[in-house]
Amino acid sequence: MTQPPLRLGIAGLGTVGAGVLAILQDQPRMIAARAGRPVEITAVSARDRNRDRGVKLDRYGWEDDPVALATRPDIDVFVELIGGDNGPAKSAVEAALASGKDVVTANKALLALHGQALAEAAEAKGRVIRFEAAVAGGIPVMKALTEGLAANRMSRVMGVMNGTCNYILTRMQATGKAYADIFAEAQALGYVEADPTLDVGGIDAAHKLALLASVAFGTKVDFAGVEIEGIERISIEDIEQAADMGYRIKLLGVAQVTGRGLVQRMSPCLVPSDSPLGQLDGGTNMVVLEGDQVGQIALRGPGAGAGPTASAVMSDVIDLARGFRVPCFGQPAATLEQATAASAQVPAPYYLRLRLTDKPGALAKVATLLGEAGVSIDRMRQYGHAETTAPVLIVTHKCARAALDLALEGLSSTGVVPGHPVALRIEEV
Amino acid sequence: MTQPPLRLGIAGLGTVGAGVLAILQDQPRMIAARAGRPVEITAVSARDRNRDRGVKLDRYGWEDDPVALATRPDIDVFVELIGGDNGPAKSAVEAALASGKDVVTANKALLALHGQALAEAAEAKGRVIRFEAAVAGGIPVMKALTEGLAANRMSRVMGVMNGTCNYILTRMQATGKAYADIFAEAQALGYVEADPTLDVGGIDAAHKLALLASVAFGTKVDFAGVEIEGIERISIEDIEQAADMGYRIKLLGVAQVTGRGLVQRMSPCLVPSDSPLGQLDGGTNMVVLEGDQVGQIALRGPGAGAGPTASAVMSDVIDLARGFRVPCFGQPAATLEQATAASAQVPAPYYLRLRLTDKPGALAKVATLLGEAGVSIDRMRQYGHAETTAPVLIVTHKCARAALDLALEGLSSTGVVPGHPVALRIEEV
Repeated sequence: MTQPPLRLGIAGLGTVGAGVLAILQDQPRMIAARAGRPVEITAVSARDRNRDRGVKLDRYGWEDDPVALATRPDIDVFVELIGGDNGPAKSAVEAALASGKDVVTANKALLALHGQALAEAAEAKGRVIRFEAAVAGGIPVMKALTEGLAANRMSRVMGVMNGTCNYILTRMQATGKAYADIFAEAQALGYVEADPTLDVGGIDAAHKLALLASVAFGTKVDFAGVEIEGIERISIEDIEQAADMGYRIKLLGVAQVTGRGLVQRMSPCLVPSDSPLGQLDGGTNMVVLEGDQVGQIALRGPGAGAGPTASAVMSDVIDLARGFRVPCFGQPAATLEQATAASAQVPAPYYLRLRLTDKPGALAKVATLLGEAGVSIDRMRQYGHAETTAPVLIVTHKCARAALDLALEGLSSTGVVPGHPVALRIEEV
Repeated sequence: MTQPPLRLGIAGLGTVGAGVLAILQDQPRMIAARAGRPVEITAVSARDRNRDRGVKLDRYGWEDDPVALATRPDIDVFVELIGGDNGPAKSAVEAALASGKDVVTANKALLALHGQALAEAAEAKGRVIRFEAAVAGGIPVMKALTEGLAANRMSRVMGVMNGTCNYILTRMQATGKAYADIFAEAQALGYVEADPTLDVGGIDAAHKLALLASVAFGTKVDFAGVEIEGIERISIEDIEQAADMGYRIKLLGVAQVTGRGLVQRMSPCLVPSDSPLGQLDGGTNMVVLEGDQVGQIALRGPGAGAGPTASAVMSDVIDLARGFRVPCFGQPAATLEQATAASAQVPAPYYLRLRLTDKPGALAKVATLLGEAGVSIDRMRQYGHAETTAPVLIVTHKCARAALDLALEGLSSTGVVPGHPVALRIEEV
């Protein structure tokens, strides 16, 4: 082993940071054998030096300021595990790139919002940013896309990439309990982010989708172009009705290129119960990649946690130690195309649930209105009920979301559909 | 793009070879953008120059002899798609390495039998052998193991990696037809190799398992150490009884390191119907990778076919164009350990099916004999029947295979168990 060690500066010593330290402390020889050279930590940075993290810090240098760490001349790679799309994480990554370091990060928000500028800054200095841990935790999906499937023109990428949402949806199904109850349970277990809308609002998963889409389609990362809908409005009734029809409800991300541009959606969808995505329970993640040569590849694994996320961070570090330097989004930043955000241009069948005032002709009004909007009905059921409104379920044939939205607007003016109908896309997976 | 092109010599122009040519002819700019330099074909070699393959050959040099192609000074990478563990494939790969070329191959048999010697020959010249296409077709599993999960100590790898066997087993289940009927159907569809034992005898899948195990555990590839059992003795009765108990039968490869050494098994196993492996239908492949950090990762996709296999070949080629040179088995050949083959050291529950002579005390004899061998019974069923022997199903508690084999030997001497009992491992997946 004649090569010099690769020297890391690690900022952020939460669960993931401690996990990275544990791997390097427990398996230095294995890492060196695989990387072809030793991997060492020069210095670390975190908010509190004295918190017990279950790993020793005394052998490393310490910096209170992550920017100071990022610019130290005795590190080769800056590992950013602070999080957040702004503040110290952003300043430190910018400083690291400006001083000619490579960057490894698990920060999906930072890259979803500032990825193009950061990738350009890296390339201006001949450096790279690697972010395997930012998307789907321990699943090596960025590597699969940028390298394993590099000979493919990708047609669609899909993913269930927020473990908290999948946990909530599968627990609702398993227990028959309401969303609010299971949400409270997940919160008590510490599964929900401090700002819950990041999880249940779909934002965290949408960050990941924007990164996947950029790499899959060679487009500039476009988080603003993701249509986002959370799971807050999913009722136990929806879950049970969907199951009854052979579907599961998942917070599903879909990105695909159509004639009109790039479609990116993160929303609750119905997928067949017997499909790999439909069978995904609990906090597990799955990403499905579709390419012209390979057909469909599905990758399944833990989307969070110290071990899986540290595994992904370290795979980027080992790649850099080996001298493997894929550009941030798989190709030079200057060659990425500006995506045209195409809103919901891919027709699909939809699941609708609405309440209908209990008077003669009400159902006919709904059916007529849907027909006039160009939405044709595949199946419809009206349920027995004790109230003054009757629950109605409709599965449409394939239609454009625009036509459906037109119909939904019309429904509220009929006077027979109180409240807000639920409309969920049925995705062919 | 200032870098010189990467120049390929491609030997073997069957389905996969034609698929590789099609990608390079259809997408030269995309490949160059991703690889950072153009990828060109200098010359090709095959048995018949004039066969119509749907791709043009006139722009490439031609060599009748693959060895002559492999040693041409104007190629950088020799792509071996001839197949076979001996003959021209082996000679040409050896010649390519001796003359300082990198090698990309889809040839699992060659590497399973001669991988260590070839890897050493490559490293002696500072070259590498890459074989993504040799294991699980289009699934980027070698990359996931050697790079994506490089920070993990792997504990177990499993896989359903022969599409023909999985097709036969799932068709038997779907149609209720006998093995012989579905085998004939698969043969008529061209799904079965010229020598069927490669497929249904489990040899092809065992080649793949030996390669996976080497990379996962850092051991010298040891095909001779794989215990192999084919699917020829699986009856429709076994499939239906297994389904009835909540299991599917799969030709499953399992490799794991125990205190006594490396266990490698390729055999029909029962896996839970609702597990990802249990849900795998038709010709699709799945590989499950378990590591100390990441937990369990499952990769699913097409295991054969022109597009998927060419996708895998080209991912290796693009890596080489990018300058990514992972050693053949993930670490230098000299550092790979000699595996101690540990035969069936991991206890498991077993499924037994036998026929019992229809006389008083017969069942008691069987139960006593199993008990004396240390095999305890979890469930037992005797079925109604019209013959002079009664079908009996037994599910054991966890036991060592050696104890079970002892019991099975004893059964034949009881005089009440005619024929050969079927014994299938139930694998926790």
